[in-house]
Amino acid sequence: MSEEIFKSRPTAALIGLGLIGGSMALAWKKHNIVQHCIGVDENPDHAKQALELNLVDEILPLEEAINKADIILLAVPVQVVAALLPIILAQVKNQIVLDVGSTKANISHIASLQENRGRFVATHPMWGTEHTGPAAATVYAFTDKAVVLCNTGSSDKDALLWTRAMYQTIGMHILEMESKAHDLHAAYVSHISHITSFALANTVLEKEREESTIFEMSSGGFESTVRLAKSNPSMWLPIFMQNRENVLDVLNEHITQLKKFKSCLEKENAEYLQELMVSANRIREII
Amino acid sequence: MSEEIFKSRPTAALIGLGLIGGSMALAWKKHNIVQHCIGVDENPDHAKQALELNLVDEILPLEEAINKADIILLAVPVQVVAALLPIILAQVKNQIVLDVGSTKANISHIASLQENRGRFVATHPMWGTEHTGPAAATVYAFTDKAVVLCNTGSSDKDALLWTRAMYQTIGMHILEMESKAHDLHAAYVSHISHITSFALANTVLEKEREESTIFEMSSGGFESTVRLAKSNPSMWLPIFMQNRENVLDVLNEHITQLKKFKSCLEKENAEYLQELMVSANRIREII
Repeated sequence: MSEEIFKSRPTAALIGLGLIGGSMALAWKKHNIVQHCIGVDENPDHAKQALELNLVDEILPLEEAINKADIILLAVPVQVVAALLPIILAQVKNQIVLDVGSTKANISHIASLQENRGRFVATHPMWGTEHTGPAAATVYAFTDKAVVLCNTGSSDKDALLWTRAMYQTIGMHILEMESKAHDLHAAYVSHISHITSFALANTVLEKEREESTIFEMSSGGFESTVRLAKSNPSMWLPIFMQNRENVLDVLNEHITQLKKFKSCLEKENAEYLQELMVSANRIREII
Repeated sequence: MSEEIFKSRPTAALIGLGLIGGSMALAWKKHNIVQHCIGVDENPDHAKQALELNLVDEILPLEEAINKADIILLAVPVQVVAALLPIILAQVKNQIVLDVGSTKANISHIASLQENRGRFVATHPMWGTEHTGPAAATVYAFTDKAVVLCNTGSSDKDALLWTRAMYQTIGMHILEMESKAHDLHAAYVSHISHITSFALANTVLEKEREESTIFEMSSGGFESTVRLAKSNPSMWLPIFMQNRENVLDVLNEHITQLKKFKSCLEKENAEYLQELMVSANRIREII
């Protein structure tokens, strides 16, 4: 069944050749999902690098790539997905269009306004690193990770079948939910972590003047909590803006929680501080 | 030189057989630093496990262990170090006593009140995980990590020589600073990360009711930022309490930084939000 699906979709256009687009290209080739990969990237250095790294077989302008491809993957920042999706859906006939953006409500709303909505599948593979660009791409990025498919009721059956088969073939387990639920959950399990990490980096950079000491001493927990602060602002700005209400809710709760720790320290309330940590330990049961 | 030092110090007493004490025992044996390891632990399960795992050669009561050992390592929570150090220093003659606690000002102060202060070396190997107990010990835990030695001017020359040679032999690079400077830096590069991680876990546990969704979707950055929330409250409570003024300073700054993100989101101030993230990216240059 999967094989038949993949035989009939031999050419893919990857719009955006960064960490996610590049890793997807590698996974698709590895699993013989596509025969031919066309790359599209407005950054000529990234396009050149993607060719050199064999992520894609050729580089074409957007228009040509869309015409030539059976599958069109949007792996660009979420505000670019929002801008390109109507243009692309207006041009496709039987092709399948999917995105891999970190917010889904805004994109699903824009898709819902298009005549060709059925050709689109809204997806979010739950993987990323703080690195960017084609050189950061890795073939097993998505293996054993989750992918969220949103508003699947609005996608055509064949588009959905292909997308499900593709994600299963590259080793992902599929979750389905409405895009609004996705954005709420993403605020908790991904977006807030990035905000706290950015803020933690600024905290340390603001107050700790002895940079060599940070470097020397940071072998502890600091490196893992601050790692996400290296993430690309151009990618995260539109995510935070598109999901600002959910992110604000979670951020307010996080500040409230931090203030509880602050109050314990101020009042030397060891008992409540212990309680707060024991409560946090419950995260062991979940992840 | 080192060999001579280690030949003349064949027996060690490890007070505390958890993650750090256990890993130190493994490293010492691996590098032939000690011939015989005596274990002391008030938790009989840990003592038994440490014997079974060959972390130590025998288990003895504290008093006996102190009398028999040339080297005494305190690898217990910092409030226990504070309680045991005067008792141990009152008993030792030529033995070397060292601790590996995460706060140093309080311990150094207590040490300074003892007649035998010179036999003590205050150290902090900058390594740890969220796991606890003898079973979590690993032989290469300290390799290529930093260790901070504090107030070395107050330690006897031979005690310092042995301690430096020991840490170099197990692959650590040595930093030296006054204990107050250590505690300030540790608040930045370690303690605040633990507070944010505990608070983040509580944020998510408080608001996100769909626990299975956390689990399924958490393959992103969440896992690394929340990992430290699994840490042992009994170890961290006394650290936070002993270093509360520094931790409060850093925590206040962190809340201020988070409020900047909050304000950007509330006012949809994309430009400033971008600026905050670009500023945080400078952490790339340091770690």
